[in-house]
Amino acid sequence: MKLSKGELRYCRSLSQKKVRQAERKFILEGWRALKEVLNSSTKMEMVAVHPRFLQDPDYSRLLSELESRGIPVKEADELQLQQIAETVHAQGVIAVVQQKHDDLERIPLDRASVIVAVDAVSDPGNLGSIIRSSDWFNVDALLLGRGCVELYNEKLVRSTVGSIFHIAIVEGVELPSVLQHLGSKGFSVAGFSGDGKVDYMERQMSRKAVFVFGSEAHGISREVKASVDQIVRIPRYGKAESLNVGVACGIVLAHERAQREQQKGT
Amino acid sequence: MKLSKGELRYCRSLSQKKVRQAERKFILEGWRALKEVLNSSTKMEMVAVHPRFLQDPDYSRLLSELESRGIPVKEADELQLQQIAETVHAQGVIAVVQQKHDDLERIPLDRASVIVAVDAVSDPGNLGSIIRSSDWFNVDALLLGRGCVELYNEKLVRSTVGSIFHIAIVEGVELPSVLQHLGSKGFSVAGFSGDGKVDYMERQMSRKAVFVFGSEAHGISREVKASVDQIVRIPRYGKAESLNVGVACGIVLAHERAQREQQKGT
Repeated sequence: MKLSKGELRYCRSLSQKKVRQAERKFILEGWRALKEVLNSSTKMEMVAVHPRFLQDPDYSRLLSELESRGIPVKEADELQLQQIAETVHAQGVIAVVQQKHDDLERIPLDRASVIVAVDAVSDPGNLGSIIRSSDWFNVDALLLGRGCVELYNEKLVRSTVGSIFHIAIVEGVELPSVLQHLGSKGFSVAGFSGDGKVDYMERQMSRKAVFVFGSEAHGISREVKASVDQIVRIPRYGKAESLNVGVACGIVLAHERAQREQQKGT
Repeated sequence: MKLSKGELRYCRSLSQKKVRQAERKFILEGWRALKEVLNSSTKMEMVAVHPRFLQDPDYSRLLSELESRGIPVKEADELQLQQIAETVHAQGVIAVVQQKHDDLERIPLDRASVIVAVDAVSDPGNLGSIIRSSDWFNVDALLLGRGCVELYNEKLVRSTVGSIFHIAIVEGVELPSVLQHLGSKGFSVAGFSGDGKVDYMERQMSRKAVFVFGSEAHGISREVKASVDQIVRIPRYGKAESLNVGVACGIVLAHERAQREQQKGT
């Protein structure tokens, strides 16, 4: 069945943040991300696909999986897909997906060991790469404080290539009080900043740790800084003014994971 | 003196890649980046500044420095600056800057120890963060292969916050032959890929090393892969499909720098 005008209009309306938030849905692009949703507990409402895939044997299994779950699959032409996806290279498929809403209360803090907290990171590419790195290095949960870009921003969703569905991500977190709460639960809380006194490689390891990263322009806010145990830095050897926040997060998580693996081995 | 209509038109024309390439100039935004240019050998043609800064004592030294170097400083209103800068938050100043053209021949290979090579990274934010990390960790030179985004792309220039002026960056490099040449000069050449056989932390250190990173979508091309000594990976602990290329580069450079410092210490 072809995508109707009303459905096209609805899909396009999801490019607006306020509609996404009212409907608690968002648009996903591409086959890879679609597979990730199928493997997660996140629900899909509808899939729109270019007819060239409907007869393609490479996609028949995925399409019949959608059918068996009762997810409507509609035919959409190139122009319609482009109108919905707003990317230059439409990947031939989009899906209307329900937003997941992870809850702070449901994160098992007794079992969690590494948590990443993000304070006001407004660039979707940066937050997207923080989510991918957190997934790659098996972080237990991501806490997004106020001022962060919306999790279902189209560029962010695209840049995470499905990692959103692999990891618990809590939005709108009141970081100052939540970090204090985590501290009382045995977490060490390290904030990262260029003016930190401790080198990240010399930070004392702790079984439970929260790593806090701040905004691109202003770093960690004063209120959040007051709730961390220590300010840690990545030492600079050249002349750059700062590291990209997504890169800083990746460096810290790579080192942390390597240290933990080493400890396991000994 | 006020920015004339002709000058405004000229500045705006530099938002086009073909004009930038013909004129060998580009637009720089913001005071921080402007200071970096003043501290480098790169030449400025003109500065356009909002009149509120002309009487501001915080900027008087910088403005008289421009004057003493004979760089024309023009007054531009908010609207003109926005038309040139194309950013939402115009920072009150733009400059017309000559492109620098670093040459492969002028990189002192006998003294260089760490070089980063980039194969077809097309996202300006990603290449920008690679440049910042390379600067931060004091890489000797950056080689940009074919298919990389243009170095003077506005988003890239903005995202590097001046690092472009701190490090030798060679564009349009024929990576396959140049990597072979570097190999013959005593460099080990490591390519990074998710399917690498060697863990980056277990790679044998060498005094001279080139690290090669590939495109977001396809990784390192087949031709370039044929010119590397080994394919190295960053081990994955979670379910993410891949790491962001800028993040991967940062992780590798942070580890490399730490190893080298440790060796110095012993």
